[in-house]
Amino acid sequence: MKRVAIIGLGLLGASFGMSLREKNYHRIGWGRRDSIRKKALTHDVVDEVTETFEEAAAMADITVFALPIPQIIEYLEKGAPYWKENSLVTDMGSVKNVIHETAEKFLTPRNIVFTGSHPMAGTEKSGFENAFPTLYSNADVFLSAGSLSNEEHFAVLNDLWLASGARQTVKVDPVEHDELVAHTSHVLHVVASALALTILGDEDARKKALRFAGCATGFRDTSRIASSNPAMWREIIEHNTKANLLALENFEKALQTYRGMIQRGDFDAFEQEFAKGKCLRDSWLEYKKQH
Amino acid sequence: MKRVAIIGLGLLGASFGMSLREKNYHRIGWGRRDSIRKKALTHDVVDEVTETFEEAAAMADITVFALPIPQIIEYLEKGAPYWKENSLVTDMGSVKNVIHETAEKFLTPRNIVFTGSHPMAGTEKSGFENAFPTLYSNADVFLSAGSLSNEEHFAVLNDLWLASGARQTVKVDPVEHDELVAHTSHVLHVVASALALTILGDEDARKKALRFAGCATGFRDTSRIASSNPAMWREIIEHNTKANLLALENFEKALQTYRGMIQRGDFDAFEQEFAKGKCLRDSWLEYKKQH
Repeated sequence: MKRVAIIGLGLLGASFGMSLREKNYHRIGWGRRDSIRKKALTHDVVDEVTETFEEAAAMADITVFALPIPQIIEYLEKGAPYWKENSLVTDMGSVKNVIHETAEKFLTPRNIVFTGSHPMAGTEKSGFENAFPTLYSNADVFLSAGSLSNEEHFAVLNDLWLASGARQTVKVDPVEHDELVAHTSHVLHVVASALALTILGDEDARKKALRFAGCATGFRDTSRIASSNPAMWREIIEHNTKANLLALENFEKALQTYRGMIQRGDFDAFEQEFAKGKCLRDSWLEYKKQH
Repeated sequence: MKRVAIIGLGLLGASFGMSLREKNYHRIGWGRRDSIRKKALTHDVVDEVTETFEEAAAMADITVFALPIPQIIEYLEKGAPYWKENSLVTDMGSVKNVIHETAEKFLTPRNIVFTGSHPMAGTEKSGFENAFPTLYSNADVFLSAGSLSNEEHFAVLNDLWLASGARQTVKVDPVEHDELVAHTSHVLHVVASALALTILGDEDARKKALRFAGCATGFRDTSRIASSNPAMWREIIEHNTKANLLALENFEKALQTYRGMIQRGDFDAFEQEFAKGKCLRDSWLEYKKQH
């Protein structure tokens, strides 16, 4: 029976522990707060808790970080002297490259194997009290290889994620991963926020928008993710600046193309471009329904 | 009993006719297609149809245009010799200023009173066959004064819209109206479309985005209105270019502010700005729930 150390007992870590109940893993939990560690034990979130992070790391065959990105980076360094040689370390961070760089620096020289994970799961809530056992059900999980990762490590992580309820794991390169999520997720938060600020930002515009409140379903949906957690998105974008700047640049170019058409009065081109966007999105939606 | 001419028997016009059943108006209908005029009569969408637009105009106390913007402009000019003096003409167009300008040119010199309407109602569908009697139920309707409009005309239109099921009418200036809808609706379609084109536009990006399909609820919502009707949005933006260019410029500035923060690595400012956007949007949502 493999020993899995779950580091961090918030929404992600506690849900992960719950998802592995009766799944042939020995679950060791650690979180900074004593009260949460006690609750995790009494609620069968984990089988065992340790007083310190280092104890959990020392015991683990597999370590799973369920912490915010800056803490993952911090604890990768902190844990390096404690993990067993050839033990496997993974994480749940929304970015991969900066975490891989840290792992290569501190873990690889000690023969500790880092392989990244990014489960496509989460809610707008956070914290132990919001955890639930089916958070990972049917989730896709990206896995990214460190320099010591081999097929066996992927198989071990694949088993672990499927045990948690995930639908499948998909291998990606860390840099490609970060570009992918910058384009399909991160930069959208910047765009949605910029929209909310533009439309509701000054007193006069806000008054007008409020009068329009009853009917603005377009604005409601387009700006939805502007209501996301500012500290979390700051961390994510702070640790994936290059890919986000590229995504932002590509998006600004597409906007400028539209602006040029409107300025020149070339509305045939505008309509063609809009039809192309509609066609692409409709096909995407169709694909999404079928998979 | 006032005679209301409904010009155009698509989704908006036919639904409007249905909404006025047994409401103390004599409904005259005209649409270009003979087959639709017949159906409108047999389905009690209107009480009477005319062979020509001019006949309907000549009989009407109130004329309501339920046509695309370019046709409203065309028929305002065409109808000018036929409307009775002091009869009231309105429309349902999504832009107001260009329609008011046309009305001032052709109607005002003949003492025909134009007062604009913009009901906040519609679905993603169009056409007679998709019409239904509660399309205007609880809708807000913007009313905009032409140079001959007085309080009595507003009262007549207010009665008419309330009879159709609308919740309330709200007076706006045509230019202010166009700026308002450019910011809260029109420009969002350009943004959503630019996003769809950026993320799905090139083969490589599309393949990546498709792999991500199962989980991209952020992209799904942010780009939803990119799936709108290209011909319709072309017309709307073509007839409201000034306000849309202004809205686009304001939005691009907000994006550039974010890009600058990311480039400089000033993530304290980023988080503050994001929190401001969240706060504004959350308050807006709260207001929307209460009204």
